[in-house]
Amino acid sequence: MDFPLAKSLTVKNDAKVILMILDGLGGLPSEPGGKTELETAVTPNLDSLAREGVCGLHQPIGPGITPGSGPAHLSVFGYDPIKHQVGRGVLAALGINFDLGDGDVAARGNFCTVDSNGVITDRRAGRIPTEKNEQLCEVLRKVRVPGVEVFVEPVKEHRLLLVLRGEGLNGSILDTDPQMVGKKPLDPVASIPAAEKTAGLVKQFIDGAAKALSGMSPANMLTLRGFAQKPDWPFLREIWGVSTAAIAAYPMYKGVAKLVGMDVIDTGTELEDEFDTLIERWNDYDFFYFHVKPTDSAGEDGDFDRKVSIIERVDKQIPRLMEMNPGALIVTGDHSTPAVMKAHSWHPVPTLIWSQLCRPDSVEVFGERACNAGGLGPRIPAVDLIPIAMANAGRLEKFGA
Amino acid sequence: MDFPLAKSLTVKNDAKVILMILDGLGGLPSEPGGKTELETAVTPNLDSLAREGVCGLHQPIGPGITPGSGPAHLSVFGYDPIKHQVGRGVLAALGINFDLGDGDVAARGNFCTVDSNGVITDRRAGRIPTEKNEQLCEVLRKVRVPGVEVFVEPVKEHRLLLVLRGEGLNGSILDTDPQMVGKKPLDPVASIPAAEKTAGLVKQFIDGAAKALSGMSPANMLTLRGFAQKPDWPFLREIWGVSTAAIAAYPMYKGVAKLVGMDVIDTGTELEDEFDTLIERWNDYDFFYFHVKPTDSAGEDGDFDRKVSIIERVDKQIPRLMEMNPGALIVTGDHSTPAVMKAHSWHPVPTLIWSQLCRPDSVEVFGERACNAGGLGPRIPAVDLIPIAMANAGRLEKFGA
Repeated sequence: MDFPLAKSLTVKNDAKVILMILDGLGGLPSEPGGKTELETAVTPNLDSLAREGVCGLHQPIGPGITPGSGPAHLSVFGYDPIKHQVGRGVLAALGINFDLGDGDVAARGNFCTVDSNGVITDRRAGRIPTEKNEQLCEVLRKVRVPGVEVFVEPVKEHRLLLVLRGEGLNGSILDTDPQMVGKKPLDPVASIPAAEKTAGLVKQFIDGAAKALSGMSPANMLTLRGFAQKPDWPFLREIWGVSTAAIAAYPMYKGVAKLVGMDVIDTGTELEDEFDTLIERWNDYDFFYFHVKPTDSAGEDGDFDRKVSIIERVDKQIPRLMEMNPGALIVTGDHSTPAVMKAHSWHPVPTLIWSQLCRPDSVEVFGERACNAGGLGPRIPAVDLIPIAMANAGRLEKFGA
Repeated sequence: MDFPLAKSLTVKNDAKVILMILDGLGGLPSEPGGKTELETAVTPNLDSLAREGVCGLHQPIGPGITPGSGPAHLSVFGYDPIKHQVGRGVLAALGINFDLGDGDVAARGNFCTVDSNGVITDRRAGRIPTEKNEQLCEVLRKVRVPGVEVFVEPVKEHRLLLVLRGEGLNGSILDTDPQMVGKKPLDPVASIPAAEKTAGLVKQFIDGAAKALSGMSPANMLTLRGFAQKPDWPFLREIWGVSTAAIAAYPMYKGVAKLVGMDVIDTGTELEDEFDTLIERWNDYDFFYFHVKPTDSAGEDGDFDRKVSIIERVDKQIPRLMEMNPGALIVTGDHSTPAVMKAHSWHPVPTLIWSQLCRPDSVEVFGERACNAGGLGPRIPAVDLIPIAMANAGRLEKFGA
């Protein structure tokens, strides 16, 4: 829904809206004619919600598109994921829970190996261990750039995050990574005039870094890419007139929630901890985004049975949630991660919406095949889910007279 | 899918993608409560693909819109058919396999009858026989226009094709056909300044034609409409990073395939010949558009049983195709041509997509009623089919991180 239209229709009430994302929920059968992970899982409580509510499958981005976690989440949050693209540098910051400020410029970096002429011989510096990376980041933190604060943070193996903080920075800077060996790293070049000052500052950092790393082996240089700044989008709380909170154990998802203005509530590492947190904080917010990561991790690991068992653990918690009497509940994934593919996929994502006012369809169980026949249809755009949930929670008034 | 987005996501592999269009596939029952042509046909092989793959019905253009062959094909090829409209002159050229060059200006023509004042008394010159038309076109080919090459080709009955070839031509010219008797043919008028020179050349041709035809009866004049030039669209091979070929027995479909940059492979006149060609040329291309015409012809003729038997002939060939181990296969029509209507119709078109990675739905047979419950949904936009097939063939990478 168009944000100004949504905003014009919102009304306030006490109904809580829960968006529960079981990451990578959608799956595939492990053998022809078999069941998916969700179809295999014994989920009496989710099945009961499916019977009482309305089901379907959502398409996160578009037909055939396999989403990354960032765009998939934004889409379920109701933001057109093509129009609302987040720069890679920002996603990298979110991924390590770096608290990116407005105006900060962030970039992903790789440690690499260059020869005596400065030509790249290994774009990943032999995939140095993360511990080595941490030591090198310590070294790079000593590089000074006049007028800006510089942050250098290790990610995994050869990857790092660079953040410049200061006045008047602009992230429209081209990658310095030439994407191949046999070439020197490129100079940072502004793609618009307003970024020229920032490009000069990045150049100063790179020169300092090259000096600091020279003589080291194998990581004696770095490349940078995906320069970006935090986007300036309307927040969920402004669009829907609700106070918003995120319950998520993993940094990346806390970060995405912050992008759309949510408060991030501290919680434990297990999904049961997250349910505890939800119930403890029930009265503090109108809208909760509730994220369960290990369904996706199991899918990525190709562990069909573990994904099944995690879905079953979620199911066991559902009665505690329903006792709180939510106004509307969405249970879905951000995308599919079939264990047989060990990766995100393009397949639509099973979805149920429950409220006292849902019109029930004929879906009797929560699973991919069953959801095809549901009232939400087999490929509802992900951006449509929150508007429907808000309506079910009584939080949208009539359009027109 | 937006073409630049598609292009940014493509990856190369060896998986073949087959788009099989059974022209006019969708049908209607011949009596209330009866089966459609596809439901009547005995299709064990297509049914097996439907069970293993994902099914639905596509909407070629929009709700309630009955498509012509040109826009229906473009839509299944993934081109928004409203934004990608082909001028009628170009379609006329495709329909007779005229090899239209870049920059050529083509128009449809009608032979007509005018009285001694030049006023039209019959817009179709009594629907002269095609043989007479051919003789008249011979006469018109002698009309010279300085600076351009003129082609005049007979179509059926009173219809002809005019093509001007030369430097700097522009097809933005208004029809000369006043669309009613009792008026004189209009002068060709440029609708933009850049077409004024071309309009002048067309005027010279018309004047010459009028002179050459004067005294003849009943066809003593002509009108022209649908001036157009070959569109300048991105080609399928550029969008998806695949080599593309068309296997089609009929000129119109070879022509539409050329519009989107496909190589057209010589083949025989029977659908079995086309399967031979597909298998012979299997290793030469990544993407094959495979067109079967007689399903539509039978529908247009109102011959329900013939349409059934052609579908059954296609079904018999499916095992030969599947032995080649395609990466992804789409089986659909470009539009519906129900035999009871003897015409194209607006009804959604049964569609199946098969790959090793399809998420199976509960569809057990390939037919209109069954497809309504499929995972593609009962009215997926036709433009979405190729993106989904490309994903299933492993030819699209993840969007965002």
